[in-house]
Amino acid sequence: MRKVLAIDAGGTKLTCAVINGNGEIISDVEKYSTPKNIDDLVKLFKEIINKHEDNIDITAFATAGAVNINNTKVDSSTPNMPRGYNQLDFSSLSKKRVFVENDANCAAWAEYIIGAAQGEKNTITITLGTGVGGGFIVDGKLLRGKSGRAGEVGSMKSNSKDRVCTCGRKNCFESYASGTGLKITAEEIAHSDEIFKKSIFNKKTPKEITTYDIIDGLKQNDEYSKKVFDIWKKDLITGLINITNIFDPESIIISGGMGKFLDTEEIQNAVNSEIVVSDIKIKLAKAGNYSGMIGAALLACQKC
Amino acid sequence: MRKVLAIDAGGTKLTCAVINGNGEIISDVEKYSTPKNIDDLVKLFKEIINKHEDNIDITAFATAGAVNINNTKVDSSTPNMPRGYNQLDFSSLSKKRVFVENDANCAAWAEYIIGAAQGEKNTITITLGTGVGGGFIVDGKLLRGKSGRAGEVGSMKSNSKDRVCTCGRKNCFESYASGTGLKITAEEIAHSDEIFKKSIFNKKTPKEITTYDIIDGLKQNDEYSKKVFDIWKKDLITGLINITNIFDPESIIISGGMGKFLDTEEIQNAVNSEIVVSDIKIKLAKAGNYSGMIGAALLACQKC
Repeated sequence: MRKVLAIDAGGTKLTCAVINGNGEIISDVEKYSTPKNIDDLVKLFKEIINKHEDNIDITAFATAGAVNINNTKVDSSTPNMPRGYNQLDFSSLSKKRVFVENDANCAAWAEYIIGAAQGEKNTITITLGTGVGGGFIVDGKLLRGKSGRAGEVGSMKSNSKDRVCTCGRKNCFESYASGTGLKITAEEIAHSDEIFKKSIFNKKTPKEITTYDIIDGLKQNDEYSKKVFDIWKKDLITGLINITNIFDPESIIISGGMGKFLDTEEIQNAVNSEIVVSDIKIKLAKAGNYSGMIGAALLACQKC
Repeated sequence: MRKVLAIDAGGTKLTCAVINGNGEIISDVEKYSTPKNIDDLVKLFKEIINKHEDNIDITAFATAGAVNINNTKVDSSTPNMPRGYNQLDFSSLSKKRVFVENDANCAAWAEYIIGAAQGEKNTITITLGTGVGGGFIVDGKLLRGKSGRAGEVGSMKSNSKDRVCTCGRKNCFESYASGTGLKITAEEIAHSDEIFKKSIFNKKTPKEITTYDIIDGLKQNDEYSKKVFDIWKKDLITGLINITNIFDPESIIISGGMGKFLDTEEIQNAVNSEIVVSDIKIKLAKAGNYSGMIGAALLACQKC
């Protein structure tokens, strides 16, 4: 069985391990802070690869950013990665084959092969964290589009409140359904709704309310927090309805930090009551924290 | 080369012809009114099939409604077809092989194989008529989903004005971007905007304004009509941005009656200025009025 050195390169952390063709981690997991400049980052990549190169067949990267159709290079702007990251030809980093894929796509593939969507050939993994990411499996294949950038579900427009997203565009799904979106909804409701005056957070200014406050407020039965969370859920559900009606998938898998605050059965019932395709399952991700690395390794084995 | 008897079964009209494996119509095109009850419809299907059966290899239907994954039966409600239509097993209609596919999917396939999207393996055809239909080609294959119902782009939610769609749901893309949507927008603006008082249609009640009035008003430089049409276009563009960000297609092909009123270059520029994937082309459909029949025949040749 082939062995893959998998590297998950995020804006803050960099994680790597050796993974076999079954998606099993067969080495220690190494963790690094992502260097802030491109030379240091390339140096770190090379050190990691040099250390493992003789014992592996492929190096596979799960990375932030849009990856080109040949899986060799990031070709979008990557504001959280060092400047110059999208100039890097990953194949130059190793004597052996190098494979690169977007991290949300890798996570979706991991869920499909070894996680919550096993055997479901039409499945979507949505990552709800600081932002919103998506990976789409269509008839057992990863949806990549003409240039490899498909799956930008965070940039879907699902509302018309004229909220400005961090990307500068208006009303991106991400600006509603992410953790950041929850904070913005909290701020909006604090400004516009009398309910805030009775909230346990009424000593804070609307801008000071955090995502964690709202989650905490839910546990304390705070009516304002419940209202904010309900609106956030409704915006999330609207986006899930959209992609369900277009893809007719078997399941949507929710990953990312916000997932654990959701009652997936409640979301599933809400989505199924409004879609025009047949019912879907909504489940939490199962492939774990290393789904990016595992998905990258599994995809690399399939494609290289 | 195989010959296909292609039948396009719509709520009002039924069209049929014999088509070869290149998508060329090689017989007269016959046209019928769609019978209002299921027995008469089945009788008509059988008469048409009996007439051609000895000279063809497959019968292919392009039909309203969602078609099951085996391409044998419509399994959604079809309000415009006779009651019982979704009980009909199409394979019972002929001694030879029968193939059924949704008409919007057939149109998309025709555009991909012989129309405006030739050679573009990731392409979407959007039909803007009384309603909004969609067919998605992903990596050279028709997107069908788990049950065959994928592509319900008309049911995407792309606005939050709380407009009730004909399907009973709220804010379906179809209720904005269709010809019907244009009429509703016209009515809303006539109620809410002073501009209507100066319109050439100000003798009508808001409810009386038709889609055709607005198109006519554009030609006569009526400011109210221009405003209505601009809002309609903006809603259309929002939906096209959504599907572009998710699919990263090479092109979106616009078919249906509303297409001819659009400046596709203007729409293309507006979409490309807001998407996060690379630029797409927006073009009018080329496969013509018989694209449903042609697409059904071509798909049948591929799948049977």
